[in-house]
Amino acid sequence: MKNIPSPPQDRSSLLSDLVIANRILADQDVVDGYGHVSVRNPAEPNHFLISRWLAPDLVTEDDIVELNFDCDPVNGDKRKLYSERFIHSEIYRLRPDVKSIVHTHSPSVVLMGVCGERLVPIYHMAGFIGAGVPVFDIRKSSGMTNMLVNDAKRGKALAQKLGNASGSLMRGHGGVTVGSCLSQAVGRSVYLKINAELQSRVLGRKIASLASEEARLADSGNQDFPKDWDLWKRKVMAKK
Amino acid sequence: MKNIPSPPQDRSSLLSDLVIANRILADQDVVDGYGHVSVRNPAEPNHFLISRWLAPDLVTEDDIVELNFDCDPVNGDKRKLYSERFIHSEIYRLRPDVKSIVHTHSPSVVLMGVCGERLVPIYHMAGFIGAGVPVFDIRKSSGMTNMLVNDAKRGKALAQKLGNASGSLMRGHGGVTVGSCLSQAVGRSVYLKINAELQSRVLGRKIASLASEEARLADSGNQDFPKDWDLWKRKVMAKK
Amino acid sequence: MKNIPSPPQDRSSLLSDLVIANRILADQDVVDGYGHVSVRNPAEPNHFLISRWLAPDLVTEDDIVELNFDCDPVNGDKRKLYSERFIHSEIYRLRPDVKSIVHTHSPSVVLMGVCGERLVPIYHMAGFIGAGVPVFDIRKSSGMTNMLVNDAKRGKALAQKLGNASGSLMRGHGGVTVGSCLSQAVGRSVYLKINAELQSRVLGRKIASLASEEARLADSGNQDFPKDWDLWKRKVMAKK
Amino acid sequence: MKNIPSPPQDRSSLLSDLVIANRILADQDVVDGYGHVSVRNPAEPNHFLISRWLAPDLVTEDDIVELNFDCDPVNGDKRKLYSERFIHSEIYRLRPDVKSIVHTHSPSVVLMGVCGERLVPIYHMAGFIGAGVPVFDIRKSSGMTNMLVNDAKRGKALAQKLGNASGSLMRGHGGVTVGSCLSQAVGRSVYLKINAELQSRVLGRKIASLASEEARLADSGNQDFPKDWDLWKRKVMAKK
Repeated sequence: MKNIPSPPQDRSSLLSDLVIANRILADQDVVDGYGHVSVRNPAEPNHFLISRWLAPDLVTEDDIVELNFDCDPVNGDKRKLYSERFIHSEIYRLRPDVKSIVHTHSPSVVLMGVCGERLVPIYHMAGFIGAGVPVFDIRKSSGMTNMLVNDAKRGKALAQKLGNASGSLMRGHGGVTVGSCLSQAVGRSVYLKINAELQSRVLGRKIASLASEEARLADSGNQDFPKDWDLWKRKVMAKK
Repeated sequence: MKNIPSPPQDRSSLLSDLVIANRILADQDVVDGYGHVSVRNPAEPNHFLISRWLAPDLVTEDDIVELNFDCDPVNGDKRKLYSERFIHSEIYRLRPDVKSIVHTHSPSVVLMGVCGERLVPIYHMAGFIGAGVPVFDIRKSSGMTNMLVNDAKRGKALAQKLGNASGSLMRGHGGVTVGSCLSQAVGRSVYLKINAELQSRVLGRKIASLASEEARLADSGNQDFPKDWDLWKRKVMAKK
Repeated sequence: MKNIPSPPQDRSSLLSDLVIANRILADQDVVDGYGHVSVRNPAEPNHFLISRWLAPDLVTEDDIVELNFDCDPVNGDKRKLYSERFIHSEIYRLRPDVKSIVHTHSPSVVLMGVCGERLVPIYHMAGFIGAGVPVFDIRKSSGMTNMLVNDAKRGKALAQKLGNASGSLMRGHGGVTVGSCLSQAVGRSVYLKINAELQSRVLGRKIASLASEEARLADSGNQDFPKDWDLWKRKVMAKK
Repeated sequence: MKNIPSPPQDRSSLLSDLVIANRILADQDVVDGYGHVSVRNPAEPNHFLISRWLAPDLVTEDDIVELNFDCDPVNGDKRKLYSERFIHSEIYRLRPDVKSIVHTHSPSVVLMGVCGERLVPIYHMAGFIGAGVPVFDIRKSSGMTNMLVNDAKRGKALAQKLGNASGSLMRGHGGVTVGSCLSQAVGRSVYLKINAELQSRVLGRKIASLASEEARLADSGNQDFPKDWDLWKRKVMAKK
């Protein structure tokens, strides 16, 4: 993943964008009641911002909490938190280039994580898939579980499986995308969903997917999905 | 199914929740004009609350009737009732742990009941499927019929097929989910639909579904789907 | 098809219901810009009521015309008419029991007309399929055409292929459903679409569809789809 | 493609229709944040009108720019332009009969461009497919790329692959439709999407698609999709 420095965002606009990201993910059918999106705090890179325990479509600025890498609120907030916030902390810890993370249960993404076929980039909007989207199987590191990445050990295992990729599938659960900014992680979660949906319709067929080099070149043009972000943002703002 | 006691609900909030459940089922595309949801009366466990004959999305509190296990209204209500209310009475009779029941014609659920492949849990949200979702074939107990579970004998046959499971498919008809509370039966009906939709897209393929123990552990965390219920409720309230 | 006599409708309520039927077909995604629905005039059984040339969702009472079996407006109306109104006239001519007809291009219905597999009733709501839904191939009677049933000869060929069935697929075009009243023809068009959609997802698989006798019994309970009609009508009225 | 002369449109109504076309494409789910639609300037056939760089659903009249065949704005407009405007200029250059062009990333269209099966006309609304819809593979003319048709050379290669057809698929990217007027290019983009969606559901099966002559006759009746345009326009106007 190329890590193009973006202009630093002030905290207020970052919070506002994070709320919008939550609502975009719901509006674009990437998340349902579950899933979450976070951003690394640019002023304190060992902290990240994420909603408290709440369905993404319901998130407002008051619901955003700042967590450290132990997943504790830095201001002593006592509200219930996502049990799977360790997905975020452990990926941020291992991947300094990652500034934002999205976790979802998009049904087609779930399906591609259990169907035994490697995800390939079907079109340029999903170029990031070309570098590989590993499938994380929680059973390999943690045995029989409730499938949730709800502690640091499980989060670390996921982060290690992700490696340098831009996304990972999670068997029996969902998927994760990361980005060098909020809109890239969100954009990738949308196109991961669409690409998974398309590929699931042609399982077992030989398809003319992007070559690695095509995928790399295509992905390098998808740094922050500005045209999408603009459209998606206006859609959720119109619903307010 | 674990039966965690919830705080007893007063009748007024129970009626209100039952109306919301009806509208959620429509809003989440689990039911169309058909299907119904009921709750056992906590104050009189041999009675249950259910709408009179009406499409779920149109149900209001005035439409709720209280039926005994003979499926007669306990207050002499003369309005037309669901012909298939025996699905509810007979399951409540056989399963004291069941406090709420949902019956639907969700298309993908219908499909999984006729396609000859056993339903398996594809992700943790559908963990309850791991304990088995039997397929009820009305022909085995009742011969050639209009497919409706519209008397006590047919209801009993369905309840017996359900056994200790949390849901059942009905060949050529639809499906049933049960729960230890309203939101669990509703939540399971939503995830039964999504899991059926996903599995129907990979029929005949070997898929890495949840192990029995993973499914059991995942299901034990899905007691009442509070994050979903919150989101789903706000969606239908916003439509009022 | 059983032909249960309904109470005669006055012209005003019939016109109103026909407009609602047009809008229901659009709202239920049975028709897009094309397709049409008609009712036989109960006061003059050799006439039928249908919209002038217009997308169904835009139809108002002023757009309804009364046509004779030559497909001419009985009151000299000069507005453009559906080129395929002969579908209606020729079926009414051959089938005195038919009181209402719906023609659609529902995509899944189109697909089932070209995929080489016989349509079977997957669930009780589509019981009418059990008596057979023939595939009309316009090429057999008319050779190379623009696929449109736009004259009396083509309409007659379609009516003959329909025979005593409750619906027909049209290769490379769409489908037709008929009923003993408006809401039955509309209801069947909805469930033809859903059944086609489901069956198209399991092509080539052995499925446990309804037995002929189950289908017949189920269909005999679907005379006018009152619960659906109520729901569908309220949905389109709420959009006004 | 038959080129029936339409009455010349004044610039003001043409701009208004082009804005509506942009919004129709979004409303009909033919485009997402990407894709574009253009019309040749009837008063200056070596110019065409297209939006500046913007998601189609957000386009207003102020966003329309007039470009020459070098893809430069004729009035010195400095706003950011679509990088792929060369799709339009090079097709207009090679095809004097083409008056309007639509480019999309419709997912099913993307899928048909990579799945190795030739697109065939499944129903009369997609008759234009009968004359062939070639698959443009950018790699053949340009080697490893980011998949974008973002210069004149790539645009010319696409235009040459299109040849005399009414549409082309683009491997790993999307598709293009052309027409003798705006509503024909738009209508074809809608039915290309629907036909692709249907065919993708029966890959590998023998299907009874339209014969060449049937497709030609059907297409000749789809000159400007007036019934669709009317419906689609009213839908987007109602959203304003």
